[in-house]
Formats: sequence, C-alpha cells, structure tokens
Amino acid sequence: MVPRYARPAMTALWEPEAKYRIWFEIEAHATQKLADLGVVPQSAAKALWDWWATNPAIDVAAIDAIEAVTKHDVIAFLDWVAREVGEEARFMHQGMTSSDVLDTTLSVQLARASDILLADLDALLAAIRTRAEEHKYTPTIGRSHGIHAEPVTFGLKLAEAYAEFARCRNRLIAARAEIATCAISGAVGTFANVDPAVEEYVAQKLGLAVEPVSTQVIPRDRHAMFFATLGVIASSIERVAVEIRHLQRTEVLEAEEYFSPGQKGSSAMPHKRNPILTENLTGLARVVRAAVTPALENVALWHERDISHSSVERYIGPDATITLDFALARLTGVIDKLLVYPARMEKNMNRMGGLIHSQRVLLALTQAGLTRDESYRLVQRNAMKVWESDGDLSLLDLLKADADVTAALTPSQLDEKFDLAYHFKHVDTIFARVFG
Amino acid sequence: MVPRYARPAMTALWEPEAKYRIWFEIEAHATQKLADLGVVPQSAAKALWDWWATNPAIDVAAIDAIEAVTKHDVIAFLDWVAREVGEEARFMHQGMTSSDVLDTTLSVQLARASDILLADLDALLAAIRTRAEEHKYTPTIGRSHGIHAEPVTFGLKLAEAYAEFARCRNRLIAARAEIATCAISGAVGTFANVDPAVEEYVAQKLGLAVEPVSTQVIPRDRHAMFFATLGVIASSIERVAVEIRHLQRTEVLEAEEYFSPGQKGSSAMPHKRNPILTENLTGLARVVRAAVTPALENVALWHERDISHSSVERYIGPDATITLDFALARLTGVIDKLLVYPARMEKNMNRMGGLIHSQRVLLALTQAGLTRDESYRLVQRNAMKVWESDGDLSLLDLLKADADVTAALTPSQLDEKFDLAYHFKHVDTIFARVFG
Amino acid sequence: MVPRYARPAMTALWEPEAKYRIWFEIEAHATQKLADLGVVPQSAAKALWDWWATNPAIDVAAIDAIEAVTKHDVIAFLDWVAREVGEEARFMHQGMTSSDVLDTTLSVQLARASDILLADLDALLAAIRTRAEEHKYTPTIGRSHGIHAEPVTFGLKLAEAYAEFARCRNRLIAARAEIATCAISGAVGTFANVDPAVEEYVAQKLGLAVEPVSTQVIPRDRHAMFFATLGVIASSIERVAVEIRHLQRTEVLEAEEYFSPGQKGSSAMPHKRNPILTENLTGLARVVRAAVTPALENVALWHERDISHSSVERYIGPDATITLDFALARLTGVIDKLLVYPARMEKNMNRMGGLIHSQRVLLALTQAGLTRDESYRLVQRNAMKVWESDGDLSLLDLLKADADVTAALTPSQLDEKFDLAYHFKHVDTIFARVFG
Amino acid sequence: MVPRYARPAMTALWEPEAKYRIWFEIEAHATQKLADLGVVPQSAAKALWDWWATNPAIDVAAIDAIEAVTKHDVIAFLDWVAREVGEEARFMHQGMTSSDVLDTTLSVQLARASDILLADLDALLAAIRTRAEEHKYTPTIGRSHGIHAEPVTFGLKLAEAYAEFARCRNRLIAARAEIATCAISGAVGTFANVDPAVEEYVAQKLGLAVEPVSTQVIPRDRHAMFFATLGVIASSIERVAVEIRHLQRTEVLEAEEYFSPGQKGSSAMPHKRNPILTENLTGLARVVRAAVTPALENVALWHERDISHSSVERYIGPDATITLDFALARLTGVIDKLLVYPARMEKNMNRMGGLIHSQRVLLALTQAGLTRDESYRLVQRNAMKVWESDGDLSLLDLLKADADVTAALTPSQLDEKFDLAYHFKHVDTIFARVFG
Repeated sequence: MVPRYARPAMTALWEPEAKYRIWFEIEAHATQKLADLGVVPQSAAKALWDWWATNPAIDVAAIDAIEAVTKHDVIAFLDWVAREVGEEARFMHQGMTSSDVLDTTLSVQLARASDILLADLDALLAAIRTRAEEHKYTPTIGRSHGIHAEPVTFGLKLAEAYAEFARCRNRLIAARAEIATCAISGAVGTFANVDPAVEEYVAQKLGLAVEPVSTQVIPRDRHAMFFATLGVIASSIERVAVEIRHLQRTEVLEAEEYFSPGQKGSSAMPHKRNPILTENLTGLARVVRAAVTPALENVALWHERDISHSSVERYIGPDATITLDFALARLTGVIDKLLVYPARMEKNMNRMGGLIHSQRVLLALTQAGLTRDESYRLVQRNAMKVWESDGDLSLLDLLKADADVTAALTPSQLDEKFDLAYHFKHVDTIFARVFG
Repeated sequence: MVPRYARPAMTALWEPEAKYRIWFEIEAHATQKLADLGVVPQSAAKALWDWWATNPAIDVAAIDAIEAVTKHDVIAFLDWVAREVGEEARFMHQGMTSSDVLDTTLSVQLARASDILLADLDALLAAIRTRAEEHKYTPTIGRSHGIHAEPVTFGLKLAEAYAEFARCRNRLIAARAEIATCAISGAVGTFANVDPAVEEYVAQKLGLAVEPVSTQVIPRDRHAMFFATLGVIASSIERVAVEIRHLQRTEVLEAEEYFSPGQKGSSAMPHKRNPILTENLTGLARVVRAAVTPALENVALWHERDISHSSVERYIGPDATITLDFALARLTGVIDKLLVYPARMEKNMNRMGGLIHSQRVLLALTQAGLTRDESYRLVQRNAMKVWESDGDLSLLDLLKADADVTAALTPSQLDEKFDLAYHFKHVDTIFARVFG
Repeated sequence: MVPRYARPAMTALWEPEAKYRIWFEIEAHATQKLADLGVVPQSAAKALWDWWATNPAIDVAAIDAIEAVTKHDVIAFLDWVAREVGEEARFMHQGMTSSDVLDTTLSVQLARASDILLADLDALLAAIRTRAEEHKYTPTIGRSHGIHAEPVTFGLKLAEAYAEFARCRNRLIAARAEIATCAISGAVGTFANVDPAVEEYVAQKLGLAVEPVSTQVIPRDRHAMFFATLGVIASSIERVAVEIRHLQRTEVLEAEEYFSPGQKGSSAMPHKRNPILTENLTGLARVVRAAVTPALENVALWHERDISHSSVERYIGPDATITLDFALARLTGVIDKLLVYPARMEKNMNRMGGLIHSQRVLLALTQAGLTRDESYRLVQRNAMKVWESDGDLSLLDLLKADADVTAALTPSQLDEKFDLAYHFKHVDTIFARVFG
Repeated sequence: MVPRYARPAMTALWEPEAKYRIWFEIEAHATQKLADLGVVPQSAAKALWDWWATNPAIDVAAIDAIEAVTKHDVIAFLDWVAREVGEEARFMHQGMTSSDVLDTTLSVQLARASDILLADLDALLAAIRTRAEEHKYTPTIGRSHGIHAEPVTFGLKLAEAYAEFARCRNRLIAARAEIATCAISGAVGTFANVDPAVEEYVAQKLGLAVEPVSTQVIPRDRHAMFFATLGVIASSIERVAVEIRHLQRTEVLEAEEYFSPGQKGSSAMPHKRNPILTENLTGLARVVRAAVTPALENVALWHERDISHSSVERYIGPDATITLDFALARLTGVIDKLLVYPARMEKNMNRMGGLIHSQRVLLALTQAGLTRDESYRLVQRNAMKVWESDGDLSLLDLLKADADVTAALTPSQLDEKFDLAYHFKHVDTIFARVFG
C-alpha cells in the first residue's frame, strides 16, 4: 500500500482492527449457533455478545504481544478475547479451525471492497455519461493506427468508455459473488467437530453464501477469478487514460486534464501542462494487474491446503483493491473536470484537406459502376497528393479536376460526399444501445 | 501450437480454411441484408450464395499469393472471391471495414472454441463424478501443509474438484458471452456507410450478440476477460494435477496414473512409474496462463484502434484454446483411469500412531472442564512423543497412561475419540451440496 | 510459432531434424569418450561416426512411429539409430539418462538461437548508427508527457536507441552464457554410471561449459534468466516501436514507416498510411514477454526433477526466439528505411510560439538576481498566454513587452535565449559516449 | 510493504527521510561542481554543505505541506531547503530537471538495496555450505517425478542449492551495475543548461557510473533487467523452499524446519509441525516475481519520458527489495537450523526393496552381452513385482531367482550392483567444482 494512492474507506477495511472485528463476529455468531445446537452453553454466546455490546476497543498491540509468544495469530486473538471476556470465552472456536475464521474474514473484506469498487464504478459511469451527453454531437476525428480515419463524435468516444465500464461493473458483480462465501467446516472440511448448521448460520448473518465444499480453506480459484477481474478493470482504466494522454499531446490538444491555478508542471519548464493524472493511472493499472499472476499461482495449494497463498494475499488483497479504488476515483475526477476543446477538434479534423472523406467517394465511384479496384486507384492517386501536401491541397478540389472521377460523379455529387452530418446519423441509435 | 498438445477439432477451428469460410459467411450475410435494404442488387447476394452452394474449395494458396501483392489480407480474400464468383462480387463489403470481418470472425472462432471447451468440461465433470461416487466413503488422510491432519474420504477430494470445475464451467459460459458479439459498424464504428440493421442481421445469422458500440474494432476488454478466464481454468487443472502428483510419490502412493503395458518410464531406470501426465498438465497450465498478461496488455488500444493486438491474438487465440482443450481431455483421461489404492490410504493414515485423532481428544478435555490451554498442553505432550517415535508409539495408549488425562476422560471415552466413522457423518451433506 | 512471424534460419533450429542431429552428436561424442575410457569398444564409436559420415537422412516419421509404441522419445531415437547402424549401437547412451541428451540439446539450441539473435542485434545496431549519424544535428522537439519540452536532435533519439540495444546485446551475451552448459551426469546427477570426463569431453566438442552440478536436469534458474532477458529485449523493441508510432501520427508526422508502392493501407480508406510494422512490433513484444512468467514458474522443479518444465519449453523455446528474431529483423528494416521529415520536425517545434525556450529565460532571470519563485512566475504568466493562443502569440514578443522582465534582461539578452544551437553544444559529447 | 515481511535496514532505505538525504546530496554535489565551473557562486555550495554539517533533521511533514500547495515534490523540497539554508540556496538545481534528482536517487536506493541483498546472499551461501559439508556423504534417495530414482547425498542437494545461489549472486552483481548510474542531463537530456562535468562529478561522489545518454530520465530497460533478476532469485528461493516442504511431508520426513518450544502448529490439531516458513517463502517468491511484468511494461515510455513508471516504482521498488531481503534472511535461518534426519533418509531409501539399483543391473546385463531391449525387459519384469509388493519383496532376491538373469550374471556380481558407495565416488569432484 502506497499512502498517496490510497483512500481512507478502503484502507480502513484492511487495518488490523477491522480484521479483528470481523474475527469476533464470526466467532461470536458461531458460538451462538453452537449454543442453539446445545453444544456449548447459551451463557458463552451471551457473554461474548454482552461484551461486544459495550463497544470494546480492540487492543491490537496486546494481541500482537501474545502472538509473539504463540506464533499463531488466531490463538493469540482467542487468548486476548478470553482475557477480556472471562471464563465463558473458552467455548469459542469449538470444533473450528483457524482457517474457518481467516478465510471467511477475507471473504467479508473482499466483498466489502467490492461494494466500494462498485460505488466507484457507479460514480465513474455517471461522470462519463454526463460528459457523453454533453458532447454527443461534438465532431472529432476518429483515428485508427494514430492516423486520421473518419469523423466520430466525442460523445461516441465516451459512450464506448461507458459501455466498457458497464461491462466492468457486471464483471465485478460476478467476481464479488465468487469470493463472498463462508466456510466453517473444521480442520479438513469434513464438519467432523462442527455442524454444517453453524456454517449456514454464520454465512447468513454475514451476508455470505455457504461454501459447498471446502478443505481447510476456501478454494483459491475463487480468489484467482476475483483478482483477474480487477486486472481487466485496471486495463480498461489504462485504455481511457491512454486516450486522454493522446488527446492532450501538444500537437493534438483536443482535451486536457484540469490544471489548477498555482500548479507547477515542471521545475524547469514553466509552460508545461502535463497529463500527469492519466499517466499515473497508466502506471496504477500495471500495479493492479500485477496481482493477477500471483493470484493464479495461488490456486494449486497442496492437498487440503498449504499456506503459501497467505503471504501473497497480505500484499495483493490490500494493494489491488486500494489501488483500484484510488484509480477509479481519480479517473472519475479526470473525466468530470476534463477540459474539452471542440474548436481544436474541428481544426485537427480539417487539417488533412478532406482526406477523411475518401471512403465515401470510393463507395460512390463503385456505385456509379466502376470496379472496386478502379475506384480505389482513382481515390488513392488524388488522396496521395493531398497527403504529400500536408493538407495544403484539398481532396475535393483535386477530385473535381480529375477527369476520370468527374466522368462518374458530378461536382454536386462530390460535394455531398464531404458532408459531416452524414457520419452522425446513427449516433442516436448507438446512444440508445449504450444508455438505454 | 505444439502438435503433440493439440486435438483435431480445436485445431481445425484455427486453420486458414476455417477462417476464410467464416469470412465468406459474414460477407455474404451482410450482402444479403444490404440487398434487402436496397443498397446493393439482390443478384449480388444471390451470386455469392449460389457459388457457396456449390461447396467450393477454399484455395488458401491463391489467396496468399494475392496478399503477397496487396499486403492486405481482407482485400486479398475479396479479390479472390471476386475472381471466383464474377462481377456481382464487387458489391461485397459495401460500407464495411476489414475489422468488421476480422473481429466478428474472431468472435465466431472463440465462441466455437468455447463450445468445445464446455464439452470438455462436461466430460471432465462426468469423469470426476463417477470416481467421486465410487470413493465416497474411501477413507484417506487429509493433509494440511503436507502434514497429516484428520481423515477425509477420497470421494470428498473428488467432490472438491467437481465443485471447482463446475465453477469453471460457469465462468466459461460467462466468458463465452463476453466475446460472442458481432460488429459491422464501418471504419470508425459510426455505421456511416452501413446500416446498423446489417450488423443485427449478421449477428443473428451467426448466433452472436450485437456489439452495442464499437470503434473500428470490438473492444479488447472482452478478450482480456476471456483469456483471464482460461487462465483460471488452467490453474484449477494445475491444482488437481499437483494433487495426483503428490499422491503418486513413492512414499505416499495412494493413487497412480494408469500405466500401460509396454510403456517405459525411464531409459535408465526400468522400475520407474512416473506421473508424467499430471506433470505435463502442470506445465500446460503455465502455458495457458501465459496468455493472460498479453491479453490484458491488448486492451489499451490507441483511439479507435491500433493493430498491436492482432499479432498477439494470432498466438494466444490458437495456443490458449488448443492447449486448454488438450489439457482438459488429458485430465479427464487421468481421472477416468486413475489407479486408486485404498489399502495404501489406510496404511498411511494409521502410520502416525493415531495422532490424527488429537483434536477430538483436545475437544473432549475442554468439554470435560479443562481450559483450552491446559487441554492443548496435555494433548501436545503426548502427541510429541508419538511424533518423535515416528508412529511406533500409540497416542491412545499414551493418553490412557497419562494420569492428568485419565482424571478427565475414562478409557472408553478415549476409545470413542479414535473412531473413524465420526469424521464422515457429513459426507452425505457435502455430496448433496455439490452433486445436487 | 506463427509462420508469418518466423524466419527460416531460426525456425530450422527448432525442427525435429535439427534436434535429432544434435542428439546424435551428443550420443556419438559420449560413446567416443566412453571408448577412450575403455568402457565400451572403440568399434562402437567408430560405427556411429562412420554411419554419420555417410550423411544419413533423419527419418523423423520412423522415429515417431517407434515413440508411439515406447512412449519415450529418447528410447525411440536410440532404437532407430540401432536399427540403422547395427549391433554396435547398443553401447550408446551407456550410463546416461534421457535428460543428459535432452537438456544438453536444449542448451545447444538456445546457444545457437542466441548467436542468431546477436547477429540480429548487430544488424539493428548498425542500422540505428547509420541513421543516427545522418540525423546527428537534425533538430526536433523533445517531449516529456507528450508535451513539447525543449529541443533535441533526431540523432540523439537514435543514439538513445543505440545505447539501449547495446545494453541488450551485453545482456544477451550474459544470457547465452547462462544456458550454454552441458550435463552428462546420469540419472540423478551423481555420475554413478558415467565418468565426469565424458561430460567434459562432450561439452568441449559442442562448445559448451560443463554444468558444475546437475540433478537429473540442468537447473532451470538458467533458463529463467535467459527468457527474462529476451523479455527485456522485447520491451526495448516496444519502446522504439511506440516512438515511431507516435512520430507517424497524423498531427505529428515527423517520420513514417516506408510505404511501398501498391500497398493498401485500408480496405475502406485509400488515403491511410499506417504504422503497421511498429504496431505489429508492439504486439510481438507482448508475445516474447509472455515467456517470462512461465520460465520463472519452471524453476521450482521437485527434488531431482519433475517434467513440468518440458511442455512449457516446447512452446516458449521456439516461440520466444523465433518471434524475437523476426521482431529484431523487422525493426532493423523499419529503421533502415524510415522516412524522416526534418521540415515537419521544424514546423512542429515552432508551433508553440517559442515556449520551448521558457526554461532558458527562467534561468537568465534567476542569474539576473531574481528569486527562483519570482522568475518562475514571470515566465509562467507569459507562457500561459502563448499556450492559450495555441501558438499564435510569440513568447519572445510577450517577454519583451513585460516590464518586469525587461527590468532584468535586455532585448538582445532575450534574443540570445531563443537560439537553437545552444541546445546542441553537447551532442558531440553524447555521441562520443555512445558510439565511442 | 507488509511489515511482517520487512527488516529494518532495507525498509529504512525507502523511507522519506532517506530519500530526502539523497536528494540533498545530489543537489549539493551538483551545486559544488557548478561553483567550481563558475556557474554559481562558491558561497552557494558552501552554504549548503555548512548547513548539512550541522546534521539537520529532515522535516518530512514540512516538505509534505509545501508539496500539498505546489503539487510538485522536488520544488517542495527545494523550497524547504531554501527556507532552512537561506538566500544562497536559490542557486541549487541550476539547469537541472526534477528527474535528474529523482532518477539518480532511485539508482542510489537500488544500489544500496543490492548491497544488502548481496550480503543476504553471502549469508545464505555460507549457511548452505556449512550444511553441505556436514552432509556431504549423508545418503538419501534421489527422486525424479517424485518417484525414487537412485541414491544421492543430502550434501549434493545442498551443493546444487549453493551453485544456484552463487549464480544468483553473479546475476545480482550484474543487475546492480545495470541500475547504478547517474543522470544530470537536464530537461531532455541534452545538457543544454548543465555541463556534463556536473553529472560526472556527482556520479563519482555517489559511486555511480555516468549514464551515457539519457532523455529526461534514466532509461527503464535498466530497471526492467534489475527487477527481472530479482524475480529469478525469488524463483530459486521457491525451488529450495519446495524441496524442504517435500522433505517435511509426514510420509517422507527426512528434514524439518526447526520447531521452537512453545510454538503451536495448529489451533485445532496440537500434533502438527508444519513447514510454514518454507510455505511462506513459496508465497513471497510469487510476490517478488509480481514486480517483473510491470517493470517490463515500464520500459516503453513515450518520447523523452512519461511518468507512468513512477507510480509502479513506488510499489515495486520497496516491495520487491524488502520482500526479497526478508525471504533470503528467512531461508538462511531455515537452512541454518534445519533438522535433518539421516536415519529416516536411509529407511526411505530402502523401502522399495532395492529397486533403486535396477539401472546398475540393466547396465551389467548389457555389458554381459544382452541387447539393451532384452536387458530392459529382464529387469523390468522383476522390478514390477517388487513395485507391486510395495517393497516387501527384494529385487536382489528375485534377480537371483531369475534363470535368465543368472545366466548372465553370478550372484556375487549381482550383490556388487547393490552397493551404495558406488554412487558416491564422484561426490568429491562435484564438491570441488561447486566450492572450489
């Protein structure tokens, strides 16, 4: 976790205190059900919940001190609770194994992290939609291979981003369901010493599904799928970030990250206004993706479990969720405040002397009876002249002066092929598909 | 693609001929709809389908020869079709861009690949289920950290594998839906020269969904999610493969890959029977996973597209699907024919002098009124003696001879704690959860 | 391996025939040394080499047919050689294990692949150097964050690429040394049945180092280092490819991939001239890098070996080397024929109204006695006006009209700060550092 | 950074204070050289060093507060120093750019981190060597595919680990050289406003090499190579960790991690002694490796730099070095205190009824004149009986009772083939190769 790329709500989820609170809830709910089943005295569950009702502080340092001796974190925690609650606490954890607590806790943390990320995505989607509506018909050049292709609108670019993050939202809902399970199944998952009813009860109390079959642990293919999904979301962030970085290039400058008064772009060059937020997002995407491979490597645990996954998860659990939360929020801010320059978009679009309309002419020639190959050559020989003039020549003028072209198309037919509105007739259809 | 790890049906999907056949279908369906819309003559569509009805051979070499000149694959194909079909073919591809064909083709290929993989998973699930039922109550030791823990059944191990691959199946269905979309939206996705109705028609004919908004290409977050899912499935294959490799170790030998008569395990050591299939699967899992990172890196294409994803997909498209198909089939064979040795399982389970029952004694002491800490110490001091004797001493005998223990538990109470059936009372519940 | 991204010499290295030729050489050299040591008859070695001297064809199909029965590749090969050579061949492979042959063969293949890649790098370095000398003093704008910064020369950009690939060359030499080792140490690496002198002899004959200690296999940390190095080289290819893609953008167009007459950039847009080679290289870099993680995962083999690495290497051995060979050659061609447009570079550099000289003014103000902060504010307030005018205003003019500035610097002092040559006074020093 | 996997010396390297101290040294050395060149007054350099000589505390909070306004870290630092030192400080950073400071600082940090890691490797190598000498002739079974193969010694296993980490040490020395460079070359690397002599001076003072050609930044192929090397070292740690985990399995138990009195292996199962340190190392290896891919993705910065690498390095710089430092130290402790059980090794080796000697018999039969194929069949048919008896039958007895065998070999010849010492005759040679 790097503090500058962390926000408080997500970070809090991963602090020791939050973890211990979840541990207690799992143990106390389990004790309650064990009491209902007659396995332990009702007084044990009552003692735990009575103490909890006092809203006790979690003494992390004290628990750490015990762990330094026992070298076992759950035992240390149980010892500490026993010290606080008294004799009745000895009925806690009956028939359970540490992983019942640890793995179910991780499920709760990842599910809560997912809820924050889903809210982040909602905010991002809202920001994108607002800007998309605003620029639904703002013309700008579409580029393939970095080369001018044909006109699009800036709103369409944003609609694409919206659709992509809407997909990400669905993926995250699926990923949340993957990891939101509860396992209280004992040392090797057989429920030998703890009735399946305890698992069902705790799961229901914590808003989790029951893990149908566990070993000592919840199977790690679930977590692999979860982190892989975060990696895909990060890649979509990167895509939009790269788009904005391109638009802010000096030569393009069709959009810019908001630049606050007093901000210094460079210690050496006072004129610089750099897309540092989206460059940063590009890097953060790499960081989130870095969790994917170790999560995949965590799946193949030995037999009923080994503990190799645990250290990995201590890193990637907080890092991937905290970083992604920060990145989604940062991207939302970037979109929300993005400076958009329609005049520059128009200027750029027109700089190639009308080359962007070449395909329409090509089609018109074909429809006028020429073969595709002949049409292609006629257009290309004029287009190349415009290209080589760096946009000083006009494709329309050249075509009108080309006898082979005018033999097929009249000047007014040619004029019509250079009409921008032609390209936007289906924008509404696309918006309806995306925004409903 | 490595031929020894490839099966014919999946491989055929990725051969040039299969690709060209899909190209033709897309172009011909599009031409049909364009004709219905009155954009091109009905005779154009008829000419294409009439030719197709003759079941023409695809002359891959001829197409390659044209591409060597045009340096553009789709144009080469269109030229070849025009050469075969005649003048009417010039109406093909009207208003479309190459990527409309290429990306929709990739969708068809990946969707068909998914169908093969889903069938593979069904076969694997069936094989696992059969063996799980067979060994539902075959006792074997559960191991955490590679160390004996408590008894499980071999059927439970297989039930876990079943549940894991059932999840993989659901993930693959979701992944298939991710990539099964059709885009016929023209040079930058605006439908400037091709009506959205064409896209809808072709999508329906090919069994695909309509891509709500495309640029020049279908967005690559879809493919990233697809390959990430294959990576998770590969990791689950690895987990089961590693389990079997462990079980076949000389010292464990609770199960073995089938060893055919005449097979030589080693050129130097004639007695060797090695788990080479599951070792191979471990490696193949790494290969499939290797597609995940490049697929994630493919997402951030520039503007309305760059073509950097294309070369990557020429590798990972075939490699990941062909290898995973092979691996799933190989694992199915391994499970199907796995030699299982219940006698050895029992022998191994008993080799630690009853240590595997220590937890039950611990619980019993707690319930008899000792503190958790006292109980733990009493059990541990006897358990350690057994451990150090390498299983020659019996935990039950030692406990019966320990006055502090017998002060709390009678000999018959102790005997009862060493009963194996105790551990299996919920196997039926778990099987019901997994197999329904 | 994808044929369109493969060149013959590298591909041939990985074909079955090449592999079997190396196998024979290893076996025959080993037999020779065994004969010299008196372990096998001299006639055995002689028979092998006499047969080899007839330049026999390798019947791959026949060997495959035997392997289909024995399910063991080395035994199949030995059987086939025995069939061809006769009775004397039974002394082959004495005391050796399959991996002695397989691993040493992989060493030979990777060493030879390295030699091809080193030659590729030499050609690339030569091409870069030629263009660097040509454009040593061609001014162009340096860009940080995609934003104009200060002037550099196009030759400097190429010098950076040269230095980077010169480092790659050194890394590859080190990586070659990592994997160019020979192990003939028997079933578990103890030389129980084969004298270390055999290993030394074969190593010397094949130009390899002796592996100081092997198990059944050559340790895979060597191969991990090798493929990691290829991944770094691929990333450097990506860097240069991305640079060229940027330079070819419509709005920048300072350089272009060579565009051959008759080439069609787009099926739909005849004017397109796309940087498809460098986009392709961007993708191929991802492919080569994809070998790194599986190679790292291959290191942790079990005990004296498991065979999980083998299938991985069947993919990444050919794929990473063949793809990298192709990519290096393609990049060499791109550099060699790159169309460079100095006039456009100058035009772009001047488009921001002289903002690129802002730092020099800042320094001059500081040296004239103003504080850094005051100087920064004076420059920035003028620079921002130029920025907002989209380069229509001139920074020099504005500064001359700013009383606070002219209080510190005279007009002629300001003029001097806008001199381009000032920036290139150390180009020679840098070239001397890079090219010697 | 996860505190439980961090050691103080390495962690301190990455704390803000350490970073600011390096920043100051770079700025002050540069100012000194600028003064020597007559660019700034000698009093400026003197003022800086005089202040430094007072050993001033670095007020991280004050610097952070300034950065919150300027949004630029280096400017914030310079402002703070100016506030502390006074007017003379305005000559600092003359002609430099932020990256000159930031990148050179990262070089110093990574070089110092390398020094710690090299010391870690030295300690690890010493620990391995001690145990290798101790167990040079401790017999144990060599295993391929997890199956008993032929005898090795435990010292040989450790010699292999030694050789592997000795290679890692060499790789790390090379990796350190990759990143130990200094760049003070100004805004785009042209030295426009700062003489190359400044760079040379600072480099020499800090023990770095001069970066031959930089852009605004030190090229990131260097860092990619560095982190890739850490990834290889991590994989070697994983290999040894996995070996120990295997040896500690209940059924094998040839070695064990040291188990301290009072340690609790399991909250539920008091008899457990788990290889948790080496399992943990397996996970930490995945964490270190996770830095490799983002470091490779960092190479392709845009033009003279973008800042996408920076956020990545804020994670992987500390995480990979701190985690690797911890892991190396932990592995050293594991090796140092490893409990080794020679008696169990012997017991395991003998459990297969002498099958491990089968190859020697095979060779003897061949040498006695049988064909390789006949010999193989004779051995295999007896070996299979032993195998199926689970080691209850003796291969030697069966061979002596097989007429086809005894037709070729006498009983005493057969006895000799079962001699253990035969396998260890070259241990000395191997040790000499490895340890010199």
